[in-house]
Amino acid sequence: MREMRRKDKEIGMDDAINFLTEHEYGVLSTVGTDGQPYGVPLNYAYKDNCIYFHCALTGHKIDNIVNNPKVSFCAVGDTKVLPSEFSTNYVSAVAFGVASEIQGTERYNALVLLLEKFSPDFLEEGKKYIKKLDKATKVIKIEIQHISGKKAPAKS
Amino acid sequence: MREMRRKDKEIGMDDAINFLTEHEYGVLSTVGTDGQPYGVPLNYAYKDNCIYFHCALTGHKIDNIVNNPKVSFCAVGDTKVLPSEFSTNYVSAVAFGVASEIQGTERYNALVLLLEKFSPDFLEEGKKYIKKLDKATKVIKIEIQHISGKKAPAKS
Repeated sequence: MREMRRKDKEIGMDDAINFLTEHEYGVLSTVGTDGQPYGVPLNYAYKDNCIYFHCALTGHKIDNIVNNPKVSFCAVGDTKVLPSEFSTNYVSAVAFGVASEIQGTERYNALVLLLEKFSPDFLEEGKKYIKKLDKATKVIKIEIQHISGKKAPAKS
Repeated sequence: MREMRRKDKEIGMDDAINFLTEHEYGVLSTVGTDGQPYGVPLNYAYKDNCIYFHCALTGHKIDNIVNNPKVSFCAVGDTKVLPSEFSTNYVSAVAFGVASEIQGTERYNALVLLLEKFSPDFLEEGKKYIKKLDKATKVIKIEIQHISGKKAPAKS
């Protein structure tokens, strides 16, 4: 994996993972059979070097992942335009990895992880919701192979 | 270009363009020679069916674009997690297009467009800044071939 050009803006892997863990949405980048990239926003949860999300049974991103499981995932937060400096503050994390559909216990645990992240006060209702939508949802795991983070302003 | 699966969440092209015009940053998705997608956040400006951004002379996204100019651009805003509904409100626009480096007057006009968007109160200083960084910056144009937008909650 290539090195970051702006080393002064690089944050450590732990900081990148902490940001990814806390942040609520990111953009998944996949590529189609025709070489057309496709970026789509989604909610996700991070645990133990994996990013999890759920989606409908069919769709553009699923088709792309089946064709080519290599993906990238980008989360951005704390953005603030600085008009007088012709610059922007932000924090971002970019992960590269391999996406695959998961099943069984691993699938259920990923859905509960999403539930715990986004609806911690509605766990019981959420588990019923998981059951109700069981056959209408795919769950995808991205095993991260490389992650990096950036923060501006750069560390002094 | 494929149709949106969730037609109920689709917004019109004008609304998608208005959102893209107003929003401050998005994620550019490109793909490398090895088929690895890469999503990276950036500030941009929209005008007349094109997205403009500037970047350093070298880097991952430039290498990818030179290899394969097909790109996707995704902007997301107004996100709000709805814990009790196991859902999220958001607005998003996804554009597909072809990226190329621009030069001369077209390049200068794109930099001024970015300046007018992000630093409207600092136009004169910004024009000096453009001159100063002239040789350190590439300017990329994405000619949009397809754009779509989504909004949740869905229209009733």
